[in-house]
Amino acid sequence: MPQRTSENQIIGLLQTRYAARHRWLAMGMGDDAAVVRLPGARELLALTTDMLLEAIDFRREWITPRQLGYKSMAVNLSDLAAMGVRPRGVTVALALPAGATERWIRQFYDGLTECGARHGAALLGGDLSSSKGGIMVSITAVGESVHRKILYRSGGRPGDGLYVTGTLGRSAAGLKLLQDGIARSRQPAQREALRRHLTPEPRCGAGQWLAQSGLAHCLMDLSDGLSRDLPRMCAASRVDAVVYTDRLPVFAASRAWHCDPLAMALHGGEDYELLFAVPKARQRRLEQSYPAALPPIARIGELAPGDGTVWVSEPGKQRRRLPIRAFDHFAT
Amino acid sequence: MPQRTSENQIIGLLQTRYAARHRWLAMGMGDDAAVVRLPGARELLALTTDMLLEAIDFRREWITPRQLGYKSMAVNLSDLAAMGVRPRGVTVALALPAGATERWIRQFYDGLTECGARHGAALLGGDLSSSKGGIMVSITAVGESVHRKILYRSGGRPGDGLYVTGTLGRSAAGLKLLQDGIARSRQPAQREALRRHLTPEPRCGAGQWLAQSGLAHCLMDLSDGLSRDLPRMCAASRVDAVVYTDRLPVFAASRAWHCDPLAMALHGGEDYELLFAVPKARQRRLEQSYPAALPPIARIGELAPGDGTVWVSEPGKQRRRLPIRAFDHFAT
Repeated sequence: MPQRTSENQIIGLLQTRYAARHRWLAMGMGDDAAVVRLPGARELLALTTDMLLEAIDFRREWITPRQLGYKSMAVNLSDLAAMGVRPRGVTVALALPAGATERWIRQFYDGLTECGARHGAALLGGDLSSSKGGIMVSITAVGESVHRKILYRSGGRPGDGLYVTGTLGRSAAGLKLLQDGIARSRQPAQREALRRHLTPEPRCGAGQWLAQSGLAHCLMDLSDGLSRDLPRMCAASRVDAVVYTDRLPVFAASRAWHCDPLAMALHGGEDYELLFAVPKARQRRLEQSYPAALPPIARIGELAPGDGTVWVSEPGKQRRRLPIRAFDHFAT
Repeated sequence: MPQRTSENQIIGLLQTRYAARHRWLAMGMGDDAAVVRLPGARELLALTTDMLLEAIDFRREWITPRQLGYKSMAVNLSDLAAMGVRPRGVTVALALPAGATERWIRQFYDGLTECGARHGAALLGGDLSSSKGGIMVSITAVGESVHRKILYRSGGRPGDGLYVTGTLGRSAAGLKLLQDGIARSRQPAQREALRRHLTPEPRCGAGQWLAQSGLAHCLMDLSDGLSRDLPRMCAASRVDAVVYTDRLPVFAASRAWHCDPLAMALHGGEDYELLFAVPKARQRRLEQSYPAALPPIARIGELAPGDGTVWVSEPGKQRRRLPIRAFDHFAT
């Protein structure tokens, strides 16, 4: 405890008991990032924190320091992408066990700043400590709205089309390779899966475009998998959702290494793609105006009246409740 | 590695190699907090990160969850106090080993929000994870300048008087009690030392007053002890400093439990008092106008021309270089 399973409960406790409510606080706990309205500022400020812990979120044997740096930055920027916010900077707290070298630290920060530079996030400061446990990275990312437009998880309405960016289950397929002892591969699909798992790309461009376009009702990122994250959007928006399995942009190539692409698209974590809802009347405009340079989008289902339940509709089968069955990063 | 001793080196590497330089970045790495100028904002934004790790920064047997929450917040707010910035909010990343209870989490956040409420910092969000190592807390605090006045470590000039708030070596005296197995005491001085060590009070009020008054040239907080922190101020301001030992506000009561109050005032960490420099011409005004409700201040020495060396002047002895000999939290 807290296992990831009970994390929702604890977060609930924190929200009701401790979360701040202030005039200047546009969004406190409960979304991908907190949003602060500073007196006189043209834009809203978004803040988010995420940590990566050895043996919980990653294994040292599977990831290079450079990849770990890249991923730590990416995971945090994804929370800003999830609100359509423009990244500005990060602070980094890093704790390292005895034996870590300056070379390790240098490579870690090379990867971290490489990802940051790609998305406009500068290294603002941090803390460095020795650790008696494993490696521990905790990053706080700060971003600014563009024209004060921010998209939350709430705001989805029955009838909205449900969309995702990119491909789902690709990171889980990469994790499967690592678990099978395949850390390198020349096979393009395997390389892609490994790369996606080890150095995910936050969808900052797509997120900002969606917020700017005014076409979406709500937005979040997929970090824990569709079957965990979609219920959160449904709960925040007070709607049900239906997912059509034949519409999911699954990573079919993973079948070659004995993955179930559909199960991984539904339950696999760490894709860091975006999930968003668009009202019917704007779907055509979305599909016509969405820039080709951004990761492709797919309509995977729709929101429906309800109390937060997620349904799966498979061709030729009866509609069923989607069970929460996330691939735990390191199930114990 | 990185031991706290080599932290300066690594920070130096990060500063030269990775630290961002941007028009909107008023102060990047290298001070107590980063300072950001957001377009249109009336005030400057300060950001700082600090972590507390079990077995490195604290021992579970010595501190209650409530105290740990309080201290985690205090340590971070102290970095804002160190710039004269008004705290606004924090994000909290918390990792807990198996066996932690909801009660533990509740008490931790009770302490954290108690300290936050006292100084105006709201809980904005965070991350919660299980840990295979010990307890790990990483907090990022955000604050705003008042009337755009911020005090940095640099800015001290030869001839400035060197001041501190409060008492030095009190936290180290509390740590000594814990090391001797005394976690509770009815003796007022011992209670004070323990309280100061376990639930330090960030000097936010004094820091803001100093920035507002326009009387000080530079400001920082004392987290690692005078013998470690004063050289940092001297380096940033490119001056030497002289400390008069008979002027130090030592915690004399600790002699009763076999402490050396002077050594602890010079080398003891975690007092979280403020250290600042005031030009000669303003010292009288400072001493007359400094509010009685704030922690008392003492002039302990002065800045002098030089290259960053700290000198100690003891009555009847020859002036000597101050060795860096911080009391390591948990020397190994």
